[in-house]
Amino acid sequence: MPLRFWKKIQTLSRKVELRPLRTLVDEGKTVVILDQTKLPHETAFVVLRTLTEAAHAIRVMQVRGAPLIGATAAYGVALGLTGGAAAATALPLETILATLSATRPTAVNLHWALDRMKRVLSLLPLDQQEKAAWLEAHAIAREDEAANEAIGHHGLPLLQALHTSLAHRGRGAGREGVNIMTHCNAGWLATVAHGTAISPIYAAHAAGIPLHVWVSETRPRNQGHLTAWELDQAGIPHTLMADNAAGLLMMQGKVDCVIVGADRIAANGDTANKIGTYLKALAAHAHGIPFYVAAPMSTIDFACPDGTHIPIEERAKEELDARVHVRVANPAFDVTPASLITGIITERGVTASGELRCKVV
Amino acid sequence: MPLRFWKKIQTLSRKVELRPLRTLVDEGKTVVILDQTKLPHETAFVVLRTLTEAAHAIRVMQVRGAPLIGATAAYGVALGLTGGAAAATALPLETILATLSATRPTAVNLHWALDRMKRVLSLLPLDQQEKAAWLEAHAIAREDEAANEAIGHHGLPLLQALHTSLAHRGRGAGREGVNIMTHCNAGWLATVAHGTAISPIYAAHAAGIPLHVWVSETRPRNQGHLTAWELDQAGIPHTLMADNAAGLLMMQGKVDCVIVGADRIAANGDTANKIGTYLKALAAHAHGIPFYVAAPMSTIDFACPDGTHIPIEERAKEELDARVHVRVANPAFDVTPASLITGIITERGVTASGELRCKVV
Repeated sequence: MPLRFWKKIQTLSRKVELRPLRTLVDEGKTVVILDQTKLPHETAFVVLRTLTEAAHAIRVMQVRGAPLIGATAAYGVALGLTGGAAAATALPLETILATLSATRPTAVNLHWALDRMKRVLSLLPLDQQEKAAWLEAHAIAREDEAANEAIGHHGLPLLQALHTSLAHRGRGAGREGVNIMTHCNAGWLATVAHGTAISPIYAAHAAGIPLHVWVSETRPRNQGHLTAWELDQAGIPHTLMADNAAGLLMMQGKVDCVIVGADRIAANGDTANKIGTYLKALAAHAHGIPFYVAAPMSTIDFACPDGTHIPIEERAKEELDARVHVRVANPAFDVTPASLITGIITERGVTASGELRCKVV
Repeated sequence: MPLRFWKKIQTLSRKVELRPLRTLVDEGKTVVILDQTKLPHETAFVVLRTLTEAAHAIRVMQVRGAPLIGATAAYGVALGLTGGAAAATALPLETILATLSATRPTAVNLHWALDRMKRVLSLLPLDQQEKAAWLEAHAIAREDEAANEAIGHHGLPLLQALHTSLAHRGRGAGREGVNIMTHCNAGWLATVAHGTAISPIYAAHAAGIPLHVWVSETRPRNQGHLTAWELDQAGIPHTLMADNAAGLLMMQGKVDCVIVGADRIAANGDTANKIGTYLKALAAHAHGIPFYVAAPMSTIDFACPDGTHIPIEERAKEELDARVHVRVANPAFDVTPASLITGIITERGVTASGELRCKVV
């Protein structure tokens, strides 16, 4: 654990809990966040004191990842009701909610968190709202942390079993251990703490299982660099690669399992996740490599019968560095059919992707 | 066809043949090349007058693509024997061959072309070598052009048949026509003229078949931008996308066939091509989309029984823009099993990938 990292966060926050590594620290009247726009080149922190600062942090992606956006928005409500040093008085709840809601219109967790804050606060008299907002935001952050920690817990035996089976076959006991491939960033940087897909990896590392992680670049936004940075902080061996290399590495027997996060899981187990996930799932299937999705229960959309009902967000063409007049397709997500998913790891346990309805409802 | 492009090449070259678009023009005592390091942002040409200039052009990748490297090296021999304005006298053949051979040590076609030049020239008296070198280099360039044109010829009926079948199903007659996905750059920029994978696309466009090409970015070196530039020059509709998007686009029914080039084809039909080709082949297979490899016969290595015998080149980590201390895996090629390849298009015709030995030997 680099000392520099903790010295910085300790300087900024007197009440900070040192573990686990976290993207967001609640200081009572302010919130300290890790500025992810500076990563992986610089570890910088930002203190959020007002609603305006919280909205800005979400909009410019100083915080990113569905669970973290939700938690930051909840704290944004609390900051708005507090007013802060810069604001003369606290703002009306509706204004606060509208401001935050406009920051990232497509982020599902943002609206989920704002709806939850509204539900709790609108029942209370005005003079009790501020305190309740801080408590509820704190609860949202805590729940995210706890769910992700449980995901790690439930994923750990899967990696333990892989390690044992590789050791029996005379592999895995060497320098690299279990080789796990991941995609995008579904680590603690995308959540309040622990992460989703990376949470079982942290749990296995803490349990002394030797690991090596294949980190795919994740074009077009290159979130793989964030994952490499996270794993570096934790001292977990890892190798960055182009997304294109996933098939070859599996063919060469260099991948023992794949774990990815999820943006939305349909009721039948079809899973929307960062674009490129589906290609990895196809390759894993072709080579008999287990393919896991790790996500909190809140990611499962039981109202969505299957993947064909999941809308795919099209993002700006500028993400591909194309010349101005070149036509670009830039879908942000793809859908991996349940048939290619070995299991879904949630805070409640691991379930086969085809058994969601009966096992976890 | 942008006038600016032809005006430039006409200014530089008095004897230039206007069609097809070409990377290299033989002017008798000098050679004009398109400087591919400037593409797609600038269309610039370089006149090669000496061996040193030819070796430099190959080394710094002003020319790239296996067939084009071979042809440029052959002209490099001719330039070395000519001496040129800058050189006091012509150089010995062995020195010339050694200089060119050192430019790109892993390029197979480079050594093939140099071996062929040596075989022809070493039999001749010194005073006949210069003229023979120009003739042989010209023959190599012409043969590449002719082989690629024939590939287009043989690939055309496949695209015609797709167009007809889509029209019968009420598709393809619309604005976009047949949707073809390609990978990397296997167009005229990688050859003397016509290209390999793109040659059937040019032939179909010339035959009036409506087409749209999905161009994958091709990380880590982004050769997809070169393909987009080529298609733009030819007025063929195309869309650039991240490599990661290939699976989703096929799932959405937006791809009618895939055509890629090849760096080496084993005797059983297993094909090494730019990293990421295999993932596209897996996705095409999953969705019943025809997957073609287009390459000249010289790409087939009958001494190589199958894909497991093809060595995979590992390239510099800097291509992934990783931070200095991050470990990077950067394989340049992967191997697509013959079972995923619908057909191989060569200058002799189209053959099922599993029937190479009996059909084309």
